[in-house]
Amino acid sequence: MYLPRHFELSDKSIAFQLIEEIVFGQLISYHQGNIECNFAPFYLDAKNNYLSTHLAKKNIHTSQILEAQDLKIIFQGPHTYISPGWFSDPQNVPTWNYIAIEVEATPSIMDKAELVDLLEKLSSKHEAQFENPWTMDKLSPKKLDAMTRAIEGFKFKIKSLTAKAKLSQNKSHDQVRELIAGLKKQPGDNASLVKNWMQQINDIKD
Amino acid sequence: MYLPRHFELSDKSIAFQLIEEIVFGQLISYHQGNIECNFAPFYLDAKNNYLSTHLAKKNIHTSQILEAQDLKIIFQGPHTYISPGWFSDPQNVPTWNYIAIEVEATPSIMDKAELVDLLEKLSSKHEAQFENPWTMDKLSPKKLDAMTRAIEGFKFKIKSLTAKAKLSQNKSHDQVRELIAGLKKQPGDNASLVKNWMQQINDIKD
Repeated sequence: MYLPRHFELSDKSIAFQLIEEIVFGQLISYHQGNIECNFAPFYLDAKNNYLSTHLAKKNIHTSQILEAQDLKIIFQGPHTYISPGWFSDPQNVPTWNYIAIEVEATPSIMDKAELVDLLEKLSSKHEAQFENPWTMDKLSPKKLDAMTRAIEGFKFKIKSLTAKAKLSQNKSHDQVRELIAGLKKQPGDNASLVKNWMQQINDIKD
Repeated sequence: MYLPRHFELSDKSIAFQLIEEIVFGQLISYHQGNIECNFAPFYLDAKNNYLSTHLAKKNIHTSQILEAQDLKIIFQGPHTYISPGWFSDPQNVPTWNYIAIEVEATPSIMDKAELVDLLEKLSSKHEAQFENPWTMDKLSPKKLDAMTRAIEGFKFKIKSLTAKAKLSQNKSHDQVRELIAGLKKQPGDNASLVKNWMQQINDIKD
């Protein structure tokens, strides 16, 4: 990923926070002439520097991951169009602001106990927001067994992590304020999330 | 991309509509042992079956695209967690619903006239939403020249397109209704967009 220095998010704890918020990532690997790409929710074990996920055994990707010639996991954060019309100076050009994280990792296959543990962790994490969280013990042993047989769990030891936050850090403080004012008028979560990140990264209060 | 038949969005016009809405895509290519991945806005020429974008000349990816051993362009649509707690039957498992489009394409480099045309098209498309759209003629010839010298334009002839809409089509009509009711209570654009797509694809009215 192209990463001019001013767009680098060097604080690993923020990058980890982003991965935990985005969850839904993209597993990309290259094997015998083909880039294979699949989306899946990832669980981050920040302490031990692992990402993990599971794929359907029927997914051809499952059999390619350990033999891949290269493998990356990408998390796409908020993104939005930035209009040059928001600057007082018209000598600016359209661009796109966004956050993206790229992880290089070494894969390995989970055993059944690790896979069940991953399913528990993913479901507790996502169910925590609900008043009556669904829990894995609601599944009959037969159903749980069928589910775990149909999927393969993967652990990915993180080798390197690149976090790009393209948030107008190459513009002056005043110009970033102009963009923030422009973004505030735009509808949608993406505009609002990018605006918040721009404020945080460029240290601009409301 | 793993694509069970019931999740295939076979209507190319819907896939094209999605690409035009998402705009911001991911260029992934493999070259000499490395998967290179960059985000950029794409312009779709639906009539001639081309996608186009531009990258910074400083971006190493620019020099690798024509020599890539494989190349894909991915558009990630809305995505959201689906709780098994929303079903009346607890014998269901957590999942993620989402839309993603994968394009295989043959790249070529644009000449300067094509690049300027692309910049015009991208900016008019995005500026159309504003009361006072910024237009390229606001740029001084010097600035326009500097901008076009710093970037390389690429055309991608679409060879194949895979559109995955994982929207609970493998569930019964009644179960999809239960999920839609659950999603309606969730905050955020992603939940709302996924809900709308689920209604459209599964033909469920409000």
